[in-house]
Amino acid sequence: VLTPFEADHAPAPDRFVRHCRWLLDQDVGLAVFGTNSEGNSLAVGEKRQLLDVLLEAGLPASRMMPGTGACALPDTIELTRHAVRAGCGGVLMLPPFYYKGVTDEGLYRAFASVIDAVADARLRVYLYHIPQVSNVPIGLELIDRLLSRYPGIVAGVKDSSGDWSNTAAMLERFAPRGFDVFAGSENFLLANLRGGGVGCITATGNVNPGPIVRLYRQWRQADAEAQQAALDATRAAFAKFPMIAAMKAAIAWKTGNAAWCNVRAPLVELDGAQRAALQAALEAVGFELPDAAALA
Amino acid sequence: VLTPFEADHAPAPDRFVRHCRWLLDQDVGLAVFGTNSEGNSLAVGEKRQLLDVLLEAGLPASRMMPGTGACALPDTIELTRHAVRAGCGGVLMLPPFYYKGVTDEGLYRAFASVIDAVADARLRVYLYHIPQVSNVPIGLELIDRLLSRYPGIVAGVKDSSGDWSNTAAMLERFAPRGFDVFAGSENFLLANLRGGGVGCITATGNVNPGPIVRLYRQWRQADAEAQQAALDATRAAFAKFPMIAAMKAAIAWKTGNAAWCNVRAPLVELDGAQRAALQAALEAVGFELPDAAALA
Repeated sequence: VLTPFEADHAPAPDRFVRHCRWLLDQDVGLAVFGTNSEGNSLAVGEKRQLLDVLLEAGLPASRMMPGTGACALPDTIELTRHAVRAGCGGVLMLPPFYYKGVTDEGLYRAFASVIDAVADARLRVYLYHIPQVSNVPIGLELIDRLLSRYPGIVAGVKDSSGDWSNTAAMLERFAPRGFDVFAGSENFLLANLRGGGVGCITATGNVNPGPIVRLYRQWRQADAEAQQAALDATRAAFAKFPMIAAMKAAIAWKTGNAAWCNVRAPLVELDGAQRAALQAALEAVGFELPDAAALA
Repeated sequence: VLTPFEADHAPAPDRFVRHCRWLLDQDVGLAVFGTNSEGNSLAVGEKRQLLDVLLEAGLPASRMMPGTGACALPDTIELTRHAVRAGCGGVLMLPPFYYKGVTDEGLYRAFASVIDAVADARLRVYLYHIPQVSNVPIGLELIDRLLSRYPGIVAGVKDSSGDWSNTAAMLERFAPRGFDVFAGSENFLLANLRGGGVGCITATGNVNPGPIVRLYRQWRQADAEAQQAALDATRAAFAKFPMIAAMKAAIAWKTGNAAWCNVRAPLVELDGAQRAALQAALEAVGFELPDAAALA
């Protein structure tokens, strides 16, 4: 879930609620505070407040999977505890990602210490494997060890590696044990569902939710591959640009609210030429943002 | 400055004060909350408290350069403001390091927004270039732009790249403008001083401060290269192992206090075989920890 900001880069809570409500109306769940949320550009206190804003607005916690993994385990514990007590359906947990080349033993201890500290049977941890950003991969042996020690609690993974062979290995090895494998983008949605996965958690869910949900519902139908191809074309149009800024620019364009372009440093909004090129690329694939007025 | 932990991985404030006082007695300044401090494994609140503990113990803020750079700019601003108001001699600032492949424009905005938010003429920012860990380099053009916009405030750099050609380029381009170039390890101390740099900020300052300070004081003497070679040999003995755990194990060995071995996940302490190998390697280079009882 994208995080809208004001011109001064403070979060825009009302717009955040509207965006989340719109996503739920499109039948999409809410992975707030992930990579595409600029989640790691938000302080722990900001994330707690934004989660509370959603809850106070009456949005269902069961549909939320906030990102809670931080470099410092006390932060991960605080956010995870807050999410569980709020009734969130799960949490998406990065490994501590400052130190590189760490051991599986160290990562095991990190995840285990969070689970032990939160100590709540309602906790559902979805491991967040995004090595091209975190530079700290979550390997198969580590997952096996965590799943064996914390069955039910360690509930699944988001594989954002972009490496289908890795997703396939996760499916083969862990899906039979009730472990939920989410593809990290809709490019692999059909393959993941065919392989026993449960769906995808994807940036472009923010801007192209309808067609993604349709394939999720209809993946056994004859036109599934054509649907997948259409999803890929739309994603490719966004992926020509820095994705987060591009998605925000698309929403700003379709809603007429330029404030949607705001990103927090170190990210940078698209410039005018990029916005024009993005609009052309999106028009070429027939992109639409339904009910955009609800997002403005 | 290493951060000592208790068995439950909470910081050990009394031991932290003793270690910092010992370092000052060795004529070494205090770069607390850096990489080797496990600084990014500490929450913002923990860092604020530990800094306050040092100040309440009467240690001079002017000798402190806390690490304040975090992924989320509100955290960087909070820690930097706290350090400046406490009178710290400077702050060591990582770029926001979650997002990779970001632009110089985005990094410029990040640093500028912190400086503008802190808005204090006493602020001295030392940029922290450690691309092999942060994966977000601070390039020469970015430094030039920041130094031109914030002369006096943007005060220097710690170059931990291990790439002497990069340090040499920083020296050539920025030292004449009063910009302090610190080498990121004592391996480059002599070269850096000869090139117009101001010293080094180094992990092994924690365990080998006396000989490092001696070369800093005596670098124009005839035996400077022999002194450098001795520093390199001691560092190499530590560098055979994960450095942070190895330095802590060495202090635990020399003080007899096993609690010094504690690290916070995702790091892992040395095992028995590693500790024995480390001790043999350190004995082979004549390693000593003077006045170790003060550290226990």
